[in-house]
Amino acid sequence: MSEQMQRLDEETLDDLLEKKNYAEIKLRLSSMNEVDVAELLNPLDTTHTLLIFRMLPKDLAADTFAHINKDRQLGIINAITDTEVEEIVQELYFDDMIDLLEEMPANVVKRVIKNTPIQERKLINQFLCYPEDSAGSIMTIEMVHLKKEDTVGQAIKHIRETGLTKETIYTCYVTDAQRHLEGIVSLRKLITSDEDVKVKDLMETDIIYTNTFADQEDVAALFKRYGFIAIPVVDNEHRLIGIITVDDIMDIMEQEATEDFQLMAAMSPTEEEYLDTSVVTLAKNRLPWLLLLMLSATFTGRIMMHFESLLSQVAVLAAFIPMLMDTGGNSGSQSSTLMIRGLATGEITSKDWLRVFWKETRISLLVGTILASVNFLRLLVLERIPMPIAVTVCATLILTVVASKLVGGLLPLLAHKLKMDPAIMAGPLITTIVDALALVVYFGIAQAILGI
Amino acid sequence: MSEQMQRLDEETLDDLLEKKNYAEIKLRLSSMNEVDVAELLNPLDTTHTLLIFRMLPKDLAADTFAHINKDRQLGIINAITDTEVEEIVQELYFDDMIDLLEEMPANVVKRVIKNTPIQERKLINQFLCYPEDSAGSIMTIEMVHLKKEDTVGQAIKHIRETGLTKETIYTCYVTDAQRHLEGIVSLRKLITSDEDVKVKDLMETDIIYTNTFADQEDVAALFKRYGFIAIPVVDNEHRLIGIITVDDIMDIMEQEATEDFQLMAAMSPTEEEYLDTSVVTLAKNRLPWLLLLMLSATFTGRIMMHFESLLSQVAVLAAFIPMLMDTGGNSGSQSSTLMIRGLATGEITSKDWLRVFWKETRISLLVGTILASVNFLRLLVLERIPMPIAVTVCATLILTVVASKLVGGLLPLLAHKLKMDPAIMAGPLITTIVDALALVVYFGIAQAILGI
Repeated sequence: MSEQMQRLDEETLDDLLEKKNYAEIKLRLSSMNEVDVAELLNPLDTTHTLLIFRMLPKDLAADTFAHINKDRQLGIINAITDTEVEEIVQELYFDDMIDLLEEMPANVVKRVIKNTPIQERKLINQFLCYPEDSAGSIMTIEMVHLKKEDTVGQAIKHIRETGLTKETIYTCYVTDAQRHLEGIVSLRKLITSDEDVKVKDLMETDIIYTNTFADQEDVAALFKRYGFIAIPVVDNEHRLIGIITVDDIMDIMEQEATEDFQLMAAMSPTEEEYLDTSVVTLAKNRLPWLLLLMLSATFTGRIMMHFESLLSQVAVLAAFIPMLMDTGGNSGSQSSTLMIRGLATGEITSKDWLRVFWKETRISLLVGTILASVNFLRLLVLERIPMPIAVTVCATLILTVVASKLVGGLLPLLAHKLKMDPAIMAGPLITTIVDALALVVYFGIAQAILGI
Repeated sequence: MSEQMQRLDEETLDDLLEKKNYAEIKLRLSSMNEVDVAELLNPLDTTHTLLIFRMLPKDLAADTFAHINKDRQLGIINAITDTEVEEIVQELYFDDMIDLLEEMPANVVKRVIKNTPIQERKLINQFLCYPEDSAGSIMTIEMVHLKKEDTVGQAIKHIRETGLTKETIYTCYVTDAQRHLEGIVSLRKLITSDEDVKVKDLMETDIIYTNTFADQEDVAALFKRYGFIAIPVVDNEHRLIGIITVDDIMDIMEQEATEDFQLMAAMSPTEEEYLDTSVVTLAKNRLPWLLLLMLSATFTGRIMMHFESLLSQVAVLAAFIPMLMDTGGNSGSQSSTLMIRGLATGEITSKDWLRVFWKETRISLLVGTILASVNFLRLLVLERIPMPIAVTVCATLILTVVASKLVGGLLPLLAHKLKMDPAIMAGPLITTIVDALALVVYFGIAQAILGI
């Protein structure tokens, strides 16, 4: 879908490298997007990476550097001269530099900081101290500052002169002498206004902003709500410290969804890519929950042992346990998934618990009755199971579906209320709880109906 | 986090409405973001909505209209005059108008189209025909067209004059007389360049674009990959038809993740919000999969009936079935979730199946052995279970974890290869498959070890 005649692919690059046709490589790479260039460099060895890296125009080189993977970045930093390090560092946006420093070993960090202007070093240290996943840790500092007494003409002249080094020039920030945020104005508004108009008469003062210590998930929610391309970040004194742009937020949205998927499948969430993660780490992420859930499942074992005599008298009862447990688990997962997702997108809050309770009660009665009816017919006609056992199984089915949908619907809301991550109240945990419920109900009904 | 002194909240609005202090309402609303205004209007009755709607500045009114919910939109359209409808329609961006028309009943669509300039009607009909979830169905037509022979000065003058009516002016599109897309140039590049430079010397010709019939999920992937704020949409003749902006893509990213969550929890995916959906619809979304999985679970029932005599001789064996099935199901869900998510974010492809196979084999042996060891000690020391049964349970546990992780890891890749949605190969289906495997292994080992 995004193919163009001149774009270089991996095969052609290998071919040109073999022929040592560097002029052609340089020409064709220089018009390409940095993301595509980075992808071409990732599989190459360090020598070739460096060779190509050095033939890129300076700004494309820095942009590409920000997009290649960690190992390649490390390889390049270790192989180039201090002057080259300095050049890259100067071209990198501040947030990309912070990302780089956070991932690199101490000696590389030291080398990069050594090549940074002294006035920036303090700022780097400050940024490295923002908590992980906070707005401060993802913001950048390259934004356009305007003064409210400026005219549009002056403002545009200022943007013209400084715009190339800014992360975005499309939203400009009006600050006072102490850098307090007073307003924002879009370049669109500036460019479509008269040159003599004052910035203060154009700027919006009802500013949507965030705080350096805000959670990145909340920042992403602001972007989704308002559709902005950038949001200002202020400190507790309402001074403008940085901005967050929408391209970084897209990564965070994806990362937050991935974390929820992992939590919901009973794993410790990780940002590492699967194929790059070691077996031991992957096992470590999976083991604690499996262990916990396995030990909880022994509780259901206890229940079964308690009814051992019933089971040995009517062994056929055991045959329906997997079906009852699975259906209960699936019903509960459906409800809990809808709640967890609704809480994540802000569509549902824990205040809605009564509406959820009422809705899930009706849904589960409807769904449970239909499932039980189908099953009842199947048991009597196809399996030729005695009537009392068929009744026991189907009554349990209805009750299990109702119980599991209520547990699945309400536990995530409770978790949210208790400031826990609702995503842990997902399928695996719900299934374990529902299993025990289903068994107690099943054996209880069986004893009553079969009179054992 | 985004609170300002002057922003109006629901309570204050009710208060001001009661005091009929309309001047204050108007003043305070007029500086607010359209999303916040829309949220204030949603809970009001039609009379008050209309009252407030009519006091908003014309452009804020149209922007607000695009953000209020469907019922409110319908209420407003039905209550206002044709002239007012025309005003709103003219102010709305084309994509918002198409969204409106797609959701409204036929008589409203007719009324809106009647109030549209004749030249636009054909375009509306064309846009309404793009398949749901295609790039065509989410694009808009308000973009800046430039000519490659223009100078920067001319280009900026053109943007200055037409910019207010465009969805974005920050990326401009260079087209020839037949509207073929020749290049793109950012406003940043224009504004930081000399006035006499020609657009053709600034424009990028390695354009990342999409096609009107591309899937919106693929479009979202382009945005994530490149971090763009807009992407051009061309037809099969490479003519520029529209653009898609990042704010609309954020909604789509969220929607696609929600769909995966729903599919993975064995539900038919829906875009409707939970609290607004009827009980019958919600039940319909959940029933088919529950029914299918319930009937598949009878397969495990058959296996158990087959081993009925074994079970009645050693009834304690039944007590470990829930634990084995749950642990198997959870292990499989972990692997399948990582694969489904990796396929969705593009990190894993079906070509990686051998690496996944090898990785999951090692992880599952490690995890399975640890789980089995813990369980073995528990069974012997705490539960005082006879050694042969403890060995049976723990051997089954290891084999089940290995089998379920391989099934969970590979089935999503297979689905992807077969062009099916990998998300259906999630927990519920994996659990059903793994249940049957676990039982066969369990009884097989039991017969061998116990010699029955």
